[in-house]
Amino acid sequence: MSDTAVRKEEQLNIDSVSWGDLTWINIENPTVRETEYLAQNYPFHHLDLDDCLSRIQRPKIDEYKDYLFFVFHFPVFNKETRVTLPSQLAIFIGQGYLITLHKGELKPLVKLFKECQIEEEARQDNFSQGSGYLMYRIVDRLVDYCLPILNKLGENIEAVEDAIFTMESGDTVKEISILRRDVVSLRRIIWPMRAVLGSLEPKIRRFIKVDMAVYFGDIVDHVDKIWDALDEYKEIIEGLSETYDSLATNRTNEVMRRLTVIATILLPITVIASVYGMNIPLPFQNSSFSLLFLFLIMLLVVGGLLYFFRRKHMI
Amino acid sequence: MSDTAVRKEEQLNIDSVSWGDLTWINIENPTVRETEYLAQNYPFHHLDLDDCLSRIQRPKIDEYKDYLFFVFHFPVFNKETRVTLPSQLAIFIGQGYLITLHKGELKPLVKLFKECQIEEEARQDNFSQGSGYLMYRIVDRLVDYCLPILNKLGENIEAVEDAIFTMESGDTVKEISILRRDVVSLRRIIWPMRAVLGSLEPKIRRFIKVDMAVYFGDIVDHVDKIWDALDEYKEIIEGLSETYDSLATNRTNEVMRRLTVIATILLPITVIASVYGMNIPLPFQNSSFSLLFLFLIMLLVVGGLLYFFRRKHMI
Amino acid sequence: MSDTAVRKEEQLNIDSVSWGDLTWINIENPTVRETEYLAQNYPFHHLDLDDCLSRIQRPKIDEYKDYLFFVFHFPVFNKETRVTLPSQLAIFIGQGYLITLHKGELKPLVKLFKECQIEEEARQDNFSQGSGYLMYRIVDRLVDYCLPILNKLGENIEAVEDAIFTMESGDTVKEISILRRDVVSLRRIIWPMRAVLGSLEPKIRRFIKVDMAVYFGDIVDHVDKIWDALDEYKEIIEGLSETYDSLATNRTNEVMRRLTVIATILLPITVIASVYGMNIPLPFQNSSFSLLFLFLIMLLVVGGLLYFFRRKHMI
Amino acid sequence: MSDTAVRKEEQLNIDSVSWGDLTWINIENPTVRETEYLAQNYPFHHLDLDDCLSRIQRPKIDEYKDYLFFVFHFPVFNKETRVTLPSQLAIFIGQGYLITLHKGELKPLVKLFKECQIEEEARQDNFSQGSGYLMYRIVDRLVDYCLPILNKLGENIEAVEDAIFTMESGDTVKEISILRRDVVSLRRIIWPMRAVLGSLEPKIRRFIKVDMAVYFGDIVDHVDKIWDALDEYKEIIEGLSETYDSLATNRTNEVMRRLTVIATILLPITVIASVYGMNIPLPFQNSSFSLLFLFLIMLLVVGGLLYFFRRKHMI
Amino acid sequence: MSDTAVRKEEQLNIDSVSWGDLTWINIENPTVRETEYLAQNYPFHHLDLDDCLSRIQRPKIDEYKDYLFFVFHFPVFNKETRVTLPSQLAIFIGQGYLITLHKGELKPLVKLFKECQIEEEARQDNFSQGSGYLMYRIVDRLVDYCLPILNKLGENIEAVEDAIFTMESGDTVKEISILRRDVVSLRRIIWPMRAVLGSLEPKIRRFIKVDMAVYFGDIVDHVDKIWDALDEYKEIIEGLSETYDSLATNRTNEVMRRLTVIATILLPITVIASVYGMNIPLPFQNSSFSLLFLFLIMLLVVGGLLYFFRRKHMI
Repeated sequence: MSDTAVRKEEQLNIDSVSWGDLTWINIENPTVRETEYLAQNYPFHHLDLDDCLSRIQRPKIDEYKDYLFFVFHFPVFNKETRVTLPSQLAIFIGQGYLITLHKGELKPLVKLFKECQIEEEARQDNFSQGSGYLMYRIVDRLVDYCLPILNKLGENIEAVEDAIFTMESGDTVKEISILRRDVVSLRRIIWPMRAVLGSLEPKIRRFIKVDMAVYFGDIVDHVDKIWDALDEYKEIIEGLSETYDSLATNRTNEVMRRLTVIATILLPITVIASVYGMNIPLPFQNSSFSLLFLFLIMLLVVGGLLYFFRRKHMI
Repeated sequence: MSDTAVRKEEQLNIDSVSWGDLTWINIENPTVRETEYLAQNYPFHHLDLDDCLSRIQRPKIDEYKDYLFFVFHFPVFNKETRVTLPSQLAIFIGQGYLITLHKGELKPLVKLFKECQIEEEARQDNFSQGSGYLMYRIVDRLVDYCLPILNKLGENIEAVEDAIFTMESGDTVKEISILRRDVVSLRRIIWPMRAVLGSLEPKIRRFIKVDMAVYFGDIVDHVDKIWDALDEYKEIIEGLSETYDSLATNRTNEVMRRLTVIATILLPITVIASVYGMNIPLPFQNSSFSLLFLFLIMLLVVGGLLYFFRRKHMI
Repeated sequence: MSDTAVRKEEQLNIDSVSWGDLTWINIENPTVRETEYLAQNYPFHHLDLDDCLSRIQRPKIDEYKDYLFFVFHFPVFNKETRVTLPSQLAIFIGQGYLITLHKGELKPLVKLFKECQIEEEARQDNFSQGSGYLMYRIVDRLVDYCLPILNKLGENIEAVEDAIFTMESGDTVKEISILRRDVVSLRRIIWPMRAVLGSLEPKIRRFIKVDMAVYFGDIVDHVDKIWDALDEYKEIIEGLSETYDSLATNRTNEVMRRLTVIATILLPITVIASVYGMNIPLPFQNSSFSLLFLFLIMLLVVGGLLYFFRRKHMI
Repeated sequence: MSDTAVRKEEQLNIDSVSWGDLTWINIENPTVRETEYLAQNYPFHHLDLDDCLSRIQRPKIDEYKDYLFFVFHFPVFNKETRVTLPSQLAIFIGQGYLITLHKGELKPLVKLFKECQIEEEARQDNFSQGSGYLMYRIVDRLVDYCLPILNKLGENIEAVEDAIFTMESGDTVKEISILRRDVVSLRRIIWPMRAVLGSLEPKIRRFIKVDMAVYFGDIVDHVDKIWDALDEYKEIIEGLSETYDSLATNRTNEVMRRLTVIATILLPITVIASVYGMNIPLPFQNSSFSLLFLFLIMLLVVGGLLYFFRRKHMI
Repeated sequence: MSDTAVRKEEQLNIDSVSWGDLTWINIENPTVRETEYLAQNYPFHHLDLDDCLSRIQRPKIDEYKDYLFFVFHFPVFNKETRVTLPSQLAIFIGQGYLITLHKGELKPLVKLFKECQIEEEARQDNFSQGSGYLMYRIVDRLVDYCLPILNKLGENIEAVEDAIFTMESGDTVKEISILRRDVVSLRRIIWPMRAVLGSLEPKIRRFIKVDMAVYFGDIVDHVDKIWDALDEYKEIIEGLSETYDSLATNRTNEVMRRLTVIATILLPITVIASVYGMNIPLPFQNSSFSLLFLFLIMLLVVGGLLYFFRRKHMI
């Protein structure tokens, strides 16, 4: 029974949903024109508006008298390039409004906004407790969205772990390298996120109608869990890399030893045969047992060499 | 002579033991139905009840006015997969009750509960000092239960250490890899446990009838000792891995050198023999001392090469 | 309409621009003569003046009653030697003056000074808010100037990453080594800069007419972002180096295996041929099928060896 | 001229020396019987008495109203197994008594106790300033006892360092591994000792008659010095391990290159000789200069190959 | 115009210079006799006097009511053994006296003392501001004396860096090892020095007539700069070591590949020639084109093998 409004600014990428006294403005792919619109209608610092467009940002909280400005980075997995990259979400939060600026890559956010556009129930759910609560709902969904990325990573690590010991494919090195890079990227995204989310609750309190400390604590717990898992993955990948190298060195040894065994057996035979192939008078040359006799000598030499190497633990 | 009651909720996985004014409710493999039961009968926050079912948790303490909520992770060694995994134990503690939720994998907890179900003496021992004391008894047993896992790990490390220098089996790399993974897993379980156990005593004080600071300090000492041992194991395994690689490189060198010695001795002989096997007029071809003479030349060449390499410290 | 003065001290490398009550003195390649001039005209500590000439400095802030003394190091990429080196910028800031001493390598600074010499508008922009604001403008430009260096580094890392997996050129090791060295150098320059810039704003406040906390916070954010990127680069380069080594070991194995296959196929044939090249009576020597027969034996031996090795998973 | 008493409890491993109002009770290899005796005669917490028997302890200080309880670990080098292990020393200290419990492996402690049993002078020296001073004497001796172990380690490191560059023995890897393990063990013993000794003086003050701050500071200095040395040893051993691996890789290269040189020289000769060993019409076959001519060709081919490889910097 | 006295204690290694009310006593190679002399004439704690003779010391400051006791370690490079070792300097400072005890290896200190013995001007310079100022002069010179050692190290690192890529000498591994050890040693000397010098100024203030905070800050800056440089050197050396290993592995691959190419070309020729060297009836044996025909076959086989390997990217 409260006022609901779903509007779209003309010629600007600005959608908005209102319910009661709260308006959520969602800006996808913000450009200078959108930030100028915000500059005219809201008391935002121009440095913050610049930050919404800039690509070189860090997650942060900027506090002002009238509003808070947040920059978040959430991981987005690009299936084509197989790379996890940070996708920026900028949030302005004030009494009665919440403005989100992003590139449209954060699916849970896009979906939530659509739900609020369409369903009265979703609006009531998310808008009734003030702008801070709405923000909690957004951030909670986005943090939970990291878990499938993490699980996929865990599965890939296990697949590589199996591949290492079967030594089946030559791509294992590349797989380990991709995993390592992925964990580095994810850690770089999650690490500053932890700091921002950890200090978020006391600052956002003034924009929430109920006590949300437990809920924000829950988000922090989830991010900490993600961080722990990434830490563990990092150590496991280091271990896998070292294991792979040890196994490769082992295999080199095996191949070398095999080659040496072949050379040890065949070269002496060749030598003896070559000697008897010389065009000079040779002992027993015309005896009919000479072949048998030479075979015996070959056997003796090869056997002796093998015995000598085995005694020296070289084979 | 105090009131004792051993009950079982109908159609729910809920067992309970009461003695005096304290009730221990033990829930194995909790599902939504059990947590709904708790939600109806106790003033628990729904996020905490969600945490009991969730698999992605971190050890933590949540403080509320009426009760405390703990999540612990204890290591459980799976003999079949040879992997140590964290098993979650959720505890609600309040005045007059202690509720434990877990998967039934923590043997010392299951055993203690059974003892309390059966023996009056065990109940008196564990229930007489309030719910906090009962919790101390549970946690103490579970921490002590980590020691055999640790000792087994220590024995495995020593076994690998012996195997490295005898170089007997080709599975050493795999063994080191498994040990490394095991230590990583255990460290990930013990690390957050330390933080929770370290801050447990002041919070739980209100549920204990006697001063237990020394006892909880003792538990923290034990966990710190486990952590120290894991730290040491980690360093030792790193060292073993490096030692293994050095030894493997050494062995490659040995095999290479052997191959080179064989080639150095046999190839010149083959060359000379091949030369005298050519179908052209050769000097001394028909002399009866030609074989002796050629053997002499072979000896000289091989001897010279060996002398040259040894002087250059190459053999 | 305020007083502007662009002067140049005779026989000294001292240029100055004045606007209103603020003078910016710019000294390129300072020598003892310039510092003596400063010593006579300003109340500077002689240790600070020594620091302007010394090459072994660290970024720092020295606070005095009348003035502040800053030493900054900014990275300058030398295109010829392909090395990033720190270039020192010393700044004296007081009421009504700002003195910069440097080697003329910091292009953004040189350019800004020229702009202020030439354009009234630039002077008004930079000089109107006090010496502290002018300094903010200088430092902001110099920090932003680090970004192209960083981006170039990122591109080089990606180029090396591609080169590793194609294994095309033998210079990859050198490229990785240069990248590693570059990241080490840049980190050494950025690390102390962070500390100085982080504590700059409260100290410089007395020389600025407006509240600049947000602006200096913005600079610190940028430096932190640079630091984060360098941290990530460092980890990626370590990973690339390890990946390169794993791939190289793999290639050694491949080459070894190939050599072994060749030896396994060809040596037995040679042996058999040598045996039948001996000048002794040999079985089937004069049969017209002897060649076919021997080829059959050769085929059998080679096939048997290959089958044996494949069964032992050695090829 | 004060009261001296040297007693031995019947059937218990309890020796004691008294002088003035201070008694030192020394218990070697404590069992349950000895701790029960202590429990009956002293107000000790039963957890502390348990700790005296337990093997899984950490160095620590437990403070009580009437007494202090210390657990120390000192390194003891086992000459047979060549391993340094921690040996536990538990100390109860109160007004008028000092009780030491250990396994008899700590020679300086055993020796000091014997001296006090026998010599009046030693008793006067150690007992006259209160129980805290006696403890200082014990701990000081035990810390100094670490220095020979450390020096022996330093000598072993230098021996390995020399052995690496002469590459004389194949046991260098094992030696490095043993050194690494030794340093890990010692660090694990010294690290917690530092914390306990650092916080010892203020707690023990009430049991000493004179100000001992400087003396205890001296002990802490010694332990810090030991820690520094171990840190340095750790880094040196890591460096030695890496150096060893680099040298081993170098040697592999050397051996490979030698093998290649041999193959490069001898194989072409064999090929040419084999060709002229074929039983077919060959050019110049019957010329008397054919051998000379073939030798010339062999020389040319070998020379050409060597020249080619050297130009490509491959030899 | 003030009282100057240059004395030498009989039969003791004690030299002294007085100017005004300040005496500098310099003791080279102190023995028990010198420390006994100090014990009789000054109120020094016997532990401090022991420390002057002991070799196992750490840099530290001991504060007493009447005097301060310092232990410093400065690096001294031994040209013969090419090792940097710490040389101890013990300083007692009180009202009216400064006592330095050392081994005579610290050249700047020895030189400064000689200057003060000989020149009135030097005495006036150093003695006029109290004992604390004299100590500042000594420490400042000794810290500056570290810079040439550091620069030499930097040059050596650059030399090794060049040598790595030219791969000219086999001693590069040894050079890297020596550099690594040198950096470890220097870091161990500089690290504790930083802590002592950082906390020196407030303690020594009472022995200086003017405010020296800026001057001591300058010393701390220099030591921090040295520490930074050592940190950078450490990282660079690690990088060089890894680069060297990568290059060595590369070279192994190169040598292996070359050997394989040689074997691939020459072995098939040998095989064919051996087959035609068999003493059996061979096809085309008596044809006058048989040699040409066989050469053609050899060419085909070798060409085919080379083509096959190149297609599989194995050469």
